[in-house]
Amino acid sequence: MKHILLIGAGKSSSSLIDYLKQKSEAEDLHIVIVDKNLKLAKKIAGSHPHFDLKNIDIFDEQIRAELIQESDLVISMLPARFHMQVALDALKYGKHMVTASYISPELKALDDRIKEKNLVFMNEIGLDPGIDHMSAMRVIHHIQKQGGKMLLFESFTGGLVAPESDDNLWHYKFTWNPRNVVVAGQGGVAKFLHAGKFKYIPYNKLFRRTELLDIDGYGRFEGYANRDSLKYQKIYGLENVSTLYRGTIRRVGFSRAWNVFVQLGMTDDTYIMEDSENMTKRDFINAFLPYSPSDSVELKLRYYLKIDQDDELWLKLEELDLFDGQTKIGLKNATPAQILQKILEDKWTLKPDDKDMIVMYHKFGYELNGEQKQIDSQLVVKGEDQTYTAMAKTVGLPVGIAALKILKGEIQTPGVQLPITPEVYAPILKELEDYGIIFNEKEVPFQCYNPNTVAG
Amino acid sequence: MKHILLIGAGKSSSSLIDYLKQKSEAEDLHIVIVDKNLKLAKKIAGSHPHFDLKNIDIFDEQIRAELIQESDLVISMLPARFHMQVALDALKYGKHMVTASYISPELKALDDRIKEKNLVFMNEIGLDPGIDHMSAMRVIHHIQKQGGKMLLFESFTGGLVAPESDDNLWHYKFTWNPRNVVVAGQGGVAKFLHAGKFKYIPYNKLFRRTELLDIDGYGRFEGYANRDSLKYQKIYGLENVSTLYRGTIRRVGFSRAWNVFVQLGMTDDTYIMEDSENMTKRDFINAFLPYSPSDSVELKLRYYLKIDQDDELWLKLEELDLFDGQTKIGLKNATPAQILQKILEDKWTLKPDDKDMIVMYHKFGYELNGEQKQIDSQLVVKGEDQTYTAMAKTVGLPVGIAALKILKGEIQTPGVQLPITPEVYAPILKELEDYGIIFNEKEVPFQCYNPNTVAG
Repeated sequence: MKHILLIGAGKSSSSLIDYLKQKSEAEDLHIVIVDKNLKLAKKIAGSHPHFDLKNIDIFDEQIRAELIQESDLVISMLPARFHMQVALDALKYGKHMVTASYISPELKALDDRIKEKNLVFMNEIGLDPGIDHMSAMRVIHHIQKQGGKMLLFESFTGGLVAPESDDNLWHYKFTWNPRNVVVAGQGGVAKFLHAGKFKYIPYNKLFRRTELLDIDGYGRFEGYANRDSLKYQKIYGLENVSTLYRGTIRRVGFSRAWNVFVQLGMTDDTYIMEDSENMTKRDFINAFLPYSPSDSVELKLRYYLKIDQDDELWLKLEELDLFDGQTKIGLKNATPAQILQKILEDKWTLKPDDKDMIVMYHKFGYELNGEQKQIDSQLVVKGEDQTYTAMAKTVGLPVGIAALKILKGEIQTPGVQLPITPEVYAPILKELEDYGIIFNEKEVPFQCYNPNTVAG
Repeated sequence: MKHILLIGAGKSSSSLIDYLKQKSEAEDLHIVIVDKNLKLAKKIAGSHPHFDLKNIDIFDEQIRAELIQESDLVISMLPARFHMQVALDALKYGKHMVTASYISPELKALDDRIKEKNLVFMNEIGLDPGIDHMSAMRVIHHIQKQGGKMLLFESFTGGLVAPESDDNLWHYKFTWNPRNVVVAGQGGVAKFLHAGKFKYIPYNKLFRRTELLDIDGYGRFEGYANRDSLKYQKIYGLENVSTLYRGTIRRVGFSRAWNVFVQLGMTDDTYIMEDSENMTKRDFINAFLPYSPSDSVELKLRYYLKIDQDDELWLKLEELDLFDGQTKIGLKNATPAQILQKILEDKWTLKPDDKDMIVMYHKFGYELNGEQKQIDSQLVVKGEDQTYTAMAKTVGLPVGIAALKILKGEIQTPGVQLPITPEVYAPILKELEDYGIIFNEKEVPFQCYNPNTVAG
């Protein structure tokens, strides 16, 4: 029997628990799940004989040590900042580990000791990071194996609402942490490579520098730049590409309207607004607009940001009841970002029957036999319901698959790993296809410029 | 004989040293000046019998202690962060102290001990802070003494180039620390009160929310908001005003053009640009513009920021040779702000015969006998040359005057002080008039709205 310890059973672990349940008989698994809140785990694993659900405190050192000692592999679905305590115990007692989080420098520093014990610590094996790594590396290796030279890599991911549940003008609902959406893009310039030049986008222009993307069968989307476009350049072996860009996907028109919040200063999370408790939405907008003895908030906003009265963007603002001067928002000592989040949560929360949707789009430009070519790779995954969301599927399934393959010795390169080698991505991407996570890869005309005639 | 220790003899101390020299005979002064660089002090005080110039290390504890013990009053013209070491010694040995810097919380914490020893530690007695406090409090007290109720206070200060030396389209040259000019407005929202409402301006809109100001005999200026408009509300006794705004003065059109740098991201000081050493100005701009296979940097910029080709703003950019693709800027590992500063310093440095100019403008709105009234108070001070600049005069003279009045016991309220009481501001403002620092105060029609019909 193989023993798995799963720490953390929140919203994103439903598909993971379900996957382990499906495999538990055939693979002879015994799974211990630990969380303060076992509601979801109970719903899925219930009284299944291969599961033990434990409502105990994993931050108790002794309890944690015992549970880890009794396991063969630990999956940590805790927030990333709590992984290290688990990792240190896993190393101490010689157990494998899997997380969907970014590799921290502290974890990386354990690499030698993890290798000495011949353990696999697999990380960044959720959706983004995770499926993005695997699906990109498969194509990059394929191109390089043919003798192709990579010129361009662009990669976009977005968590959106499925078309059948899309009933607002923003074509957006919160499918993940709303706070991250509100403060997205803050805290540093967005830096990327385009045609051999480094480009920099400040926050105040981020949502005005979108790229349009067409996804087969789903129409048009837009992407805005991530801060970290160059983060994986070396890891992916793309030192010589001239274009490298990573972005976030939204439906067309979202960013242009979101830019209104950015320009007004409504996404600022660094100061507390005076008397926020008694503010209406109208007061909130007006705090960012110049005083006028005569003009309405609406007119001041239109004039300030030069918005035509028949601009569709204006309807997006109206849809949020932004000009409501009656109802108090009711948040004490709140920052603008917190107030905006509250306003949006009232409108953009998934309804019980709503489905979410994950969209991913990679572009690979390369040169082969003197010819410039391009492969586009697209993925769309829809949620089934509010338990088995697209987010839970795409985060949880690769974690579960990787865990079993490590236990069975099919993934065995030791150390602090991320899924960029064929040993890891090939079998996992293959098995993901059984669950409808299937990339559509196709050759397209090279989108780009001739690098020799570049204007800049 | 009265002994003054002056620590720091940089650019802004010329008028101070000259003032002390003028008074040294009549007031029986002995002045010790300490600095690493005594060039300016030598030029002004030279071998004057009442002066001792010492090129020694004031951060040597023993030397500092000795010098302070031998003095009756210490003037610190060091950068603000070095005041505390001096202040602790001054307190220890029972000496008065004068600075032109903001009161730090650490200094404020010594207040009780300073009072116990009956010492005067006068701070914020330069230009801004300094002359702004004094000139504002004189009018506020005058209004309140008549029975008036303050409704509005706006206050603007700017360090500019004198009209006779104004030979560029920006109507601006650096008369103070260029770095502070480049990063001005960053690091927090600008917050102020307008007609009873708190208003917030984010950095990306700061230079588009200017107020126009007419100064008698000097034409039209503009002001943009400081971050700290509410800082002196309590200290000035303005708890009940409905409008409170502090700003920085520029010539009209400066802010609109400066906003180009802000929008592009050129004022960002938080990251280092790739290969900054080999950048031309043209490369620098282009790094903030989208890639195009065909369009010029000029066209991309016009299109990106929607600048008409015959907009006067464009001439301002051309005047800086911003589109020069030949000359390298030549700064290693530089941030955008550092590169921009270098570009501007090449154009905006005062020439040997140039004169600077200080402009200050206060507006006081109040109600008296049921009537709404307003007093405007304006100050213009021009430099004589590059030694006796307007900046050096307006910073140094009030420091010198305050120092003598403390020594003579005419200013005697002990503790950590700033110049907001009649005991301090009345005689100092009077003496400043002898040096051409004269406010033009006049009644004008109340500029404002009726607070009862405010739209917001």
